[in-house]
Amino acid sequence: MTDTIVPLKRAQAERPAARRKGAEGASLDHLHGLVADDLRAVNGVILDNMQSPVVLISELAAHIVAAGGKRLRPMLTLGAARLCGYTGKRHVDLAACVEFIHTATLLHDDVVDDSALRRGAATANAVWGNKPSVLVGDFLFSRAFQISVADGSLRVLGILADTAATLAEGEVMQLTTSNDTETSEAAYLKVVTAKTAALFAAACRLGAVVAERPAAEEEALRSFGLNLGIAYQLVDDALDYGAREAVLGKSVGDDFRDGKITLPVVLAFRRGDEEERAFWRRTMEEGELEEEDFSRAMALLTRHGTIEDSIERARHYSAMACDALGLFPASDAKDALLAVVEFCTRRAH
Amino acid sequence: MTDTIVPLKRAQAERPAARRKGAEGASLDHLHGLVADDLRAVNGVILDNMQSPVVLISELAAHIVAAGGKRLRPMLTLGAARLCGYTGKRHVDLAACVEFIHTATLLHDDVVDDSALRRGAATANAVWGNKPSVLVGDFLFSRAFQISVADGSLRVLGILADTAATLAEGEVMQLTTSNDTETSEAAYLKVVTAKTAALFAAACRLGAVVAERPAAEEEALRSFGLNLGIAYQLVDDALDYGAREAVLGKSVGDDFRDGKITLPVVLAFRRGDEEERAFWRRTMEEGELEEEDFSRAMALLTRHGTIEDSIERARHYSAMACDALGLFPASDAKDALLAVVEFCTRRAH
Repeated sequence: MTDTIVPLKRAQAERPAARRKGAEGASLDHLHGLVADDLRAVNGVILDNMQSPVVLISELAAHIVAAGGKRLRPMLTLGAARLCGYTGKRHVDLAACVEFIHTATLLHDDVVDDSALRRGAATANAVWGNKPSVLVGDFLFSRAFQISVADGSLRVLGILADTAATLAEGEVMQLTTSNDTETSEAAYLKVVTAKTAALFAAACRLGAVVAERPAAEEEALRSFGLNLGIAYQLVDDALDYGAREAVLGKSVGDDFRDGKITLPVVLAFRRGDEEERAFWRRTMEEGELEEEDFSRAMALLTRHGTIEDSIERARHYSAMACDALGLFPASDAKDALLAVVEFCTRRAH
Repeated sequence: MTDTIVPLKRAQAERPAARRKGAEGASLDHLHGLVADDLRAVNGVILDNMQSPVVLISELAAHIVAAGGKRLRPMLTLGAARLCGYTGKRHVDLAACVEFIHTATLLHDDVVDDSALRRGAATANAVWGNKPSVLVGDFLFSRAFQISVADGSLRVLGILADTAATLAEGEVMQLTTSNDTETSEAAYLKVVTAKTAALFAAACRLGAVVAERPAAEEEALRSFGLNLGIAYQLVDDALDYGAREAVLGKSVGDDFRDGKITLPVVLAFRRGDEEERAFWRRTMEEGELEEEDFSRAMALLTRHGTIEDSIERARHYSAMACDALGLFPASDAKDALLAVVEFCTRRAH
């Protein structure tokens, strides 16, 4: 079933050759290669700042770092700084800040969702319980602010503080749309923008800020990150109904079982008849799940083509992300950032 | 029983008349009267910054604000600023920051402890569940940083970020000493200093920082707050084994039932015989609680005089707090701050 629902091969075949070429190189490798030295430095900053005389903090933080993750957000900061021709060192610390804020959010998110898997490994809260996850999240969040205070720029601090508040608002919004089958696409997008895209936007924007580039470039990178982040989350939510667990390191069907309403369901609810809506209400609103319900859900999503359409929506935001970089002249860094967009929308492969 | 364990009347009778006079005025009223206008302004800042387009955030935040609390920490910032002769407006915003950080910690602490009561009202997590408590805590924490970024001082931001990291470390440390009957008095004090006293210290220190007073005065106020905070927590932990619920707005015996090892038990474990230690291990380490166990615990604490001695230890830190203010000339603000120390150690009455 997973093969039928993410028909990216077809989409690829329909594209012009030039874009297909870019698509074939769609991975993080280009950006990774470009910022490899900086990324090593970021990992050093992360490791240094995870240390605490309180052993449990270092242990739990090491567990998260060992689980790894792609370091996508800090790489965006490094790539954006490179795109802006920045030659200093501030981007390294700020990339670490971005990753710390992200990690703190993950820790608190795992408590909230009670998810059993994260990045293919047991979540911290499954191993240590909810308590340390909340508190170590707070610790990492505080560390992010300590690092950015040491960086010494009130503008940067303002961006990070605003972003953190937006993230929290997004997470709370998500709680209120959870289990609500009448969630609109607009409400869904608002949640996605706040809880995911805002940090992507900040990560990219900081590259222009440290390079002291004009406002238009800062805004371009913010917009690039924002649209990339929306596309990323849209694909993520589509994959929750279609990717192999081993590939994604994430359980398929989690969102369905958690009653977390995402775009595939938002669209299917609107496109469905009354009997189908009753099904979505029973399963996702009232949480009365039976054995065959996930198969039925998949059948409905497939019939209405809503997983495919969610990916299609992601392509729209991807296109906006790419165009946002238009005012930057061609460069290795620009190519690498554009490849990230392709990667984010094509990671189902 | 509660009357026997906090024998402050005797202590009072033994004190010289001058100090007794101070003790009789031991309340927050003096400080409250002195900073009333500023405190109203702080409440305004708090109300403004609790607002969010996300309704659940405003609702939950309003619940916490309605529950009220003494606003002790922000009053300390206001009082310290007054003591330093500060005539500007920055102390108002920073006092609100301090209260937001405190409230965020409370929200996360309630999730952690699963306490049923806080300030005599149902805790936020009992009403809304753990999820919103974690996320609204994150929101308030971010707001604190937004406000302090707007204040515009990197020194202040550094103090707040460092304090937030210390608070988180203290909370995690507390988890690791919880249920450990062999916790030493030193380890207990370390937890108390980090999770409670550090924020008192920052609250007071900020008064000197905004007034741009010399380092010695800043250090004096930091030390005043730190020792006051330790005394405050010591009394709080003693009261958990002895105050009437209606008076304190907190369930008696919570710490015992949660297996949270505090000084009365630390001392009783060390002073007890093997049979007593087996009792503490069974109840607080293994959590095997029977009907009569709390009465037995109270009897052991009373026999070894450890509640009384915890209060006695609090007096030691109170004395240090008072002496820390020695270099400030006599003033209304100084008297008011000294009355807070008396209030904190005498609130069992």
